[in-house]
Amino acid sequence: MLLRRLATVRPAAPLLSIVRPTTTPLRRMLSQVPPQGAGLPGLSASKLIKTQTKEPKTMLPNNELLFGKTFSDHMLTIEWDNKNGWHAPELKPYGKLELDPSCTVFHYAVECFEGLKAYKDKDGKIRLFRPDMNMKRLARSCERLTLPAFDQSELLELIKEFCRTDERWIPNERGYSLYIRPTVIATQESLGVGASSRALLFVIASPVGPYYKTGFAAVSLYGTDHYTRAWPGGTGDAKIGANYAPGIRPQIEVAQDGYQQNLWLFGEEQWITEVGTMNFFLFWKNAQGERELITPPLDGTILPGVTRDSILSLARQWNEFKVTESKLSMFEVAKAIEEGRVIEMFGAGTAAIVSPIKRIHSKGKDLNIPLDPSDKAQQAGPLTRRLADTIMGIQYGEIPHKWSVVV
Amino acid sequence: MLLRRLATVRPAAPLLSIVRPTTTPLRRMLSQVPPQGAGLPGLSASKLIKTQTKEPKTMLPNNELLFGKTFSDHMLTIEWDNKNGWHAPELKPYGKLELDPSCTVFHYAVECFEGLKAYKDKDGKIRLFRPDMNMKRLARSCERLTLPAFDQSELLELIKEFCRTDERWIPNERGYSLYIRPTVIATQESLGVGASSRALLFVIASPVGPYYKTGFAAVSLYGTDHYTRAWPGGTGDAKIGANYAPGIRPQIEVAQDGYQQNLWLFGEEQWITEVGTMNFFLFWKNAQGERELITPPLDGTILPGVTRDSILSLARQWNEFKVTESKLSMFEVAKAIEEGRVIEMFGAGTAAIVSPIKRIHSKGKDLNIPLDPSDKAQQAGPLTRRLADTIMGIQYGEIPHKWSVVV
Repeated sequence: MLLRRLATVRPAAPLLSIVRPTTTPLRRMLSQVPPQGAGLPGLSASKLIKTQTKEPKTMLPNNELLFGKTFSDHMLTIEWDNKNGWHAPELKPYGKLELDPSCTVFHYAVECFEGLKAYKDKDGKIRLFRPDMNMKRLARSCERLTLPAFDQSELLELIKEFCRTDERWIPNERGYSLYIRPTVIATQESLGVGASSRALLFVIASPVGPYYKTGFAAVSLYGTDHYTRAWPGGTGDAKIGANYAPGIRPQIEVAQDGYQQNLWLFGEEQWITEVGTMNFFLFWKNAQGERELITPPLDGTILPGVTRDSILSLARQWNEFKVTESKLSMFEVAKAIEEGRVIEMFGAGTAAIVSPIKRIHSKGKDLNIPLDPSDKAQQAGPLTRRLADTIMGIQYGEIPHKWSVVV
Repeated sequence: MLLRRLATVRPAAPLLSIVRPTTTPLRRMLSQVPPQGAGLPGLSASKLIKTQTKEPKTMLPNNELLFGKTFSDHMLTIEWDNKNGWHAPELKPYGKLELDPSCTVFHYAVECFEGLKAYKDKDGKIRLFRPDMNMKRLARSCERLTLPAFDQSELLELIKEFCRTDERWIPNERGYSLYIRPTVIATQESLGVGASSRALLFVIASPVGPYYKTGFAAVSLYGTDHYTRAWPGGTGDAKIGANYAPGIRPQIEVAQDGYQQNLWLFGEEQWITEVGTMNFFLFWKNAQGERELITPPLDGTILPGVTRDSILSLARQWNEFKVTESKLSMFEVAKAIEEGRVIEMFGAGTAAIVSPIKRIHSKGKDLNIPLDPSDKAQQAGPLTRRLADTIMGIQYGEIPHKWSVVV
């Protein structure tokens, strides 16, 4: 489903009208470049070498957990090179990487990653949420960076084994989870710019608490068009390191003015693209007077979020209002806010599931977005809460759904 | 000089008409965010701790040197953290970095670098070429990524000491040099996306041969508009890793069709921006019939190359033809090629100094660029050769010039 949609938006054919692609007979499409490692030994879970830690770490109490600060006992590492393909995977004590300073990853940002979570349900079973989506996206990110191809089901099998090994690190409380970070880095020991002859796939895991400890906390955004997150023919649709470094300074700048995140606007039309590092959703009464949930389309500049896709699927299944993937200009949205047609607005991503938006700064003005008028403490509208509750219910196995995969 | 020019093209005010910046009273400019590390102990060359290698490496003969594949005996490392500022610099045996897998550099591409060369002149003196330009650009790249500020003259002093220490690695032959790679990476051990609380500045060095062993070898380019190298409001003017990873796949794709590099074209107007990882230069008879050397302006999407700046300075000083920084559309250039008005075309960068261009593929057609008709073996026009000869003459101290700094 995601892959089919992705196939229509690959960088070779940007949809935004601002850049018209040349089509020439000589032009090769993305898929015609053979993936790195074709014909070499593939990634195989059956070759796993397991070394249990002799010094299990002390765990923090749940209420002291901070996102991505503490890590579990083990890590998964799998080396690759262009002569031997994928080496035997290793599950071993968490520890430092030893890398030559000339490694490509330090100079040319050849690196991509994923984020997914392992949950403990009320019966003590370990669950993952749509992990196949993360495997597919990681494979696609590797393809974009000419990092090696890998067997997605084998990597998922290894991640499940990692979860079982570090099961004690999956907190036993609703809202808590073990955040899993698969990462692929280029480890060629050379300063040449090109496809890396070596790579390292590693997976680390960090126990995390709920994004909102007490109710929701809605965020204020600064509508930013002087920095641009992504563009046609760029890499905005791949989960690669290069999309993140450039966004740090803009975030710090708006934070100085009291806004938590950038609302990334694109071009003269001020197209809304993303919120910080999340996908953007608007629930409104559109110009035709219909109730509509709308999010920007996967046109090559938008990260194909797993939470984004889940929200669209659920809302379409509910069939209670119109659900649309369409470009949305900040001018239209500002007009709708002023006319009282905006019902709710939120960001969507793995960390928070949904992040309600209460204010946008645009063209010198602060525009206020409605929250739930019946419950000031919640700072989130009914649809935002319902989506969060439903997705969390599925994640913790309370709502039976094929998206929740028991390990 | 470079800094003054840079000041007019900072990301806060892109010049390209395609994105109009919002100006609001709340908008803070880049310079108003305090640099990381303000008020903490600065980078100090006098604190250098030197550990000489006990196992000097065997050196390759000059003719076996490959760019960035072998490294000298030592490396320079300087740690920074947001409590203690810059630690004591260490010059020590070249060796692996030990880094936690959660380090920011592996996930969010917070990394920037420089490239400069040390030359041995005929009197055996070590020379650097405009190293102050590299120090300034590195500082600016750090600023863009919220990496710590550093004292540029102290870092240059340390690099000079590194050159003296590894002097035997600077080849004693014209055309050969020691390529120096200063790099700054974010080493915070956390998955949060934000300003890094820790960083590592390291410098490694690789002996390199001349880019062209026998004469020049002109390159063929593919005019690429389906991938875009940089965008207004992006980071195309900073030397950061994030600008390089996305360009690898496009390079491999055009190489499959027999083109060495992408000629990066921007937008519907097909503005010429860069060539692979080099700046672009055209020497032509312009529409007014004037002989003119032209290169795209530093509008925020172009890397402010040291070689670019040197070529402009020299050509302006020669005062023999018009020298212009101006946007240039592929349509104009194609027309000029067809009308026989193009005299020479080349890329410019530290690795090759100049890289003559013999062919561009655009809109389904291969367009041929003149080389020197009087000398087929050279594959470079007289201006291209003269610029290369002059810059190389300065680099090796044969032409006295303030750009050449004796260590």
